[in-house]
Amino acid sequence: MRLPKKIRQERLKAKIEETPFITDEALAEHFTVSIQTIRLDRMELSIPELRERIKSVATDQWNETVKALPIDEVIGEIIDLELDKRAISILDITQDHVFSRNAIARGHHLFAQANSLAVAVIDDELALTAKADIQFSRQVKQGERVIAKAQVESIDRHRRTLVKVDSYVDNELVFSGHFTMFRSTDK
Amino acid sequence: MRLPKKIRQERLKAKIEETPFITDEALAEHFTVSIQTIRLDRMELSIPELRERIKSVATDQWNETVKALPIDEVIGEIIDLELDKRAISILDITQDHVFSRNAIARGHHLFAQANSLAVAVIDDELALTAKADIQFSRQVKQGERVIAKAQVESIDRHRRTLVKVDSYVDNELVFSGHFTMFRSTDK
Repeated sequence: MRLPKKIRQERLKAKIEETPFITDEALAEHFTVSIQTIRLDRMELSIPELRERIKSVATDQWNETVKALPIDEVIGEIIDLELDKRAISILDITQDHVFSRNAIARGHHLFAQANSLAVAVIDDELALTAKADIQFSRQVKQGERVIAKAQVESIDRHRRTLVKVDSYVDNELVFSGHFTMFRSTDK
Repeated sequence: MRLPKKIRQERLKAKIEETPFITDEALAEHFTVSIQTIRLDRMELSIPELRERIKSVATDQWNETVKALPIDEVIGEIIDLELDKRAISILDITQDHVFSRNAIARGHHLFAQANSLAVAVIDDELALTAKADIQFSRQVKQGERVIAKAQVESIDRHRRTLVKVDSYVDNELVFSGHFTMFRSTDK
């Protein structure tokens, strides 16, 4: 059953406040309206598109530079970064990322996004992955947007850095990993 | 110091028997001769090239068909397969697989080879990765050939299969992973 426009817009606003990383596609499904309707609602309510919302949610504008690899070698788009602290990236799952048979994202692409973010967050010219413990908590489908958040958990004297990466689709956890990274210089 | 040809060929034969997955490049380096010399030595000694050697080391010829995904979606080339038991694949590390800065293979490509082999070995139409614990034990460089060996360790009643994958360059362990896979049907 479709809601009256006014009620839908109120609920839409509440929904986006509650889950700021939700896509227009997911909102359209939630309210059983077209994506176009959601876009018009957002414009009338002056709610920016997802990418802009993510940027404003990120506590700082990212003003640091990835050191450990050229930025175009990061898998996904980095939208927030504080070296040796945290980083966020977005990866849109396209046909290139899925099994042809069932349109489910292949594990190594989620791994690649998370692992390259774990490399990118390191404040060093050289960062290599030594170990990773990862979990895939739900399937990701073609068309979904994965938001990976990396958090540096510890840096020890043996040039070892522990980075936790959690990846979400519409605020639902889809992947999590603990990465043990080596760097070239002591902290 | 270069060895006399006869002695070199004897030692070459012994070396290949000891480490059958060694590349011509590694042999050339080991004996401080050119790759061309190694190839001529092999021809004179009737020792087949690496790819053929790997195939003959594989205990059975692989006469089973990958079920869980189309064969061209496997990362690397499968050269041996016994469903729900074991599988072997080869991946040649090219410029596409390495960090531009230091020509070291990116972790997610080694992960992709191992993970897709863990999928391919499953005797089911659907196989999904639930968990993985992985270790990168030494850096892999551009030009090296990675041989991944998957071994199915257990299949339980809850449609969960544990697969161990070890990857080698010239018989040296470079990557190992324990993958927990889900399948669609009970065994």
